[in-house]
Amino acid sequence: MKIVGNIEKARQFTRRRIAEGKTVALVPTMGALHEGHFSLIKAARNQCDAVIVSIFVNPTQFGPSEDLASYPSTPDADHLACERLGVDMIFAPDVGTMYGQDCLTEVRVKELSATMCGRDRPVHFAGVCTVVAKLFNIIPAHKAFFGAKDYQQAVIIRRMGADLNFPIEIVVCPTVREADGLALSSRNAYLSPQQRKQASALYASLKMADEMIRREHPPAGQVISAMQEHLAANAPDGRIDYMQILDPHTLRDVENTEQPVLVALAVKLGKARLIDNILVDESENRP
Amino acid sequence: MKIVGNIEKARQFTRRRIAEGKTVALVPTMGALHEGHFSLIKAARNQCDAVIVSIFVNPTQFGPSEDLASYPSTPDADHLACERLGVDMIFAPDVGTMYGQDCLTEVRVKELSATMCGRDRPVHFAGVCTVVAKLFNIIPAHKAFFGAKDYQQAVIIRRMGADLNFPIEIVVCPTVREADGLALSSRNAYLSPQQRKQASALYASLKMADEMIRREHPPAGQVISAMQEHLAANAPDGRIDYMQILDPHTLRDVENTEQPVLVALAVKLGKARLIDNILVDESENRP
Repeated sequence: MKIVGNIEKARQFTRRRIAEGKTVALVPTMGALHEGHFSLIKAARNQCDAVIVSIFVNPTQFGPSEDLASYPSTPDADHLACERLGVDMIFAPDVGTMYGQDCLTEVRVKELSATMCGRDRPVHFAGVCTVVAKLFNIIPAHKAFFGAKDYQQAVIIRRMGADLNFPIEIVVCPTVREADGLALSSRNAYLSPQQRKQASALYASLKMADEMIRREHPPAGQVISAMQEHLAANAPDGRIDYMQILDPHTLRDVENTEQPVLVALAVKLGKARLIDNILVDESENRP
Repeated sequence: MKIVGNIEKARQFTRRRIAEGKTVALVPTMGALHEGHFSLIKAARNQCDAVIVSIFVNPTQFGPSEDLASYPSTPDADHLACERLGVDMIFAPDVGTMYGQDCLTEVRVKELSATMCGRDRPVHFAGVCTVVAKLFNIIPAHKAFFGAKDYQQAVIIRRMGADLNFPIEIVVCPTVREADGLALSSRNAYLSPQQRKQASALYASLKMADEMIRREHPPAGQVISAMQEHLAANAPDGRIDYMQILDPHTLRDVENTEQPVLVALAVKLGKARLIDNILVDESENRP
């Protein structure tokens, strides 16, 4: 397995594989890899001949009061895990390599970026789209793999790819969860044991919403009230950033839950801002 | 010569040439081709094995009160000229092909887009950058050719390419002029005979500025005053949109003209908004 920090070398590595007729997968990550990332790498391994994992904690997607400085970093463990999973190359550039000159260019996806996490994190998705566009140009893979926990991110990146005609297929893989339902996230490391216990209430409230909607399709407001009550009772230290029921494609709030809907939330627990979602749809298609 | 309107076919045409080991040039245009475009195509022909000309009047780079509806269109003459110049493919998509779904994604280059033409045309460069990013992804050429008349556009696209790591070299070719100095532009067709006569004053005022600066490096304000006087006397029907002396790289206004500077202007003459510029630099390097 190669570990490359240089843009031209990463591009040449990719191009050589393509010239050999191989299909190439890109798994963009910010490191601190966990089973959620591993599932993306395994899916990439299954679907493509060569797998490239990028590890880059992208500063432009963090707001000024966010956790850029404390974001977990576990490079040795990440490299070992990638090696074991048969990754062909890790692309791990430093910030100077990615943003050597001031980056004046910004890629943003209107409308889809203004709701959900975009409300609390106004610069976040422009940062994500810009760095992902850079990665797609550096590593011209056939497929890129993203996790469904970051549902809004997946919808936005898929839209950016289609709108800008990037010749890359966006593959979204299911959320990986702990035994008690908590979605895996590098930010779970911020939780105290007490907060960790409460954190299972996030997914429990989503499951409850899922059951309510499937059973009787109540208006969205009623579902959200029930979820709020559930969280207040089971995660008393949690502060809700948002709790929304949305159209899974447009990400617009809906009141009628007879159509397929996305139930999504963001909750702050101590230093961790946790997000999760559930798609309520007979076919269970992810974005 | 192929004429292709379909995105996948244009991409495959390009990829086949690359797979054969050929270098590919892209010349993005809005049609109504003139000698300025021909010089780009000839440069492309000299530098690359295969030349692709795109012809697309991009609606998103026109403001609501601009000339989208009346923009000149001469497809038969364009095709003939391209054929004669040895173009391999014309990519001429329709608006539905390029923007079939609403395009929610926008690429913009901050700072550089806020001055010069960006003042009068606030959405223009985001439209340009977005469509050029799309074209770069549809036609993954080695080099793309732009004209120096649109100096700000060239600086912005070069910056976008670098910032987003597009693996494409931006080549900027000198402005082609009529015998009296008027820069060739598809919009010159809007000029009445009377306005056409006055239009030569634009380049004359730039040449005057060039001589003043080379001779005695006066403060920028003094140069601009002299240019304004020249235009008032020689193009009395012209309305100045801007007249600026700038750093050729940052496009920031400068007062000191001892450094290399760009002198640039936009003047409305009847229905035509004409732009032109001159780079005052010992080495005469274009952006």
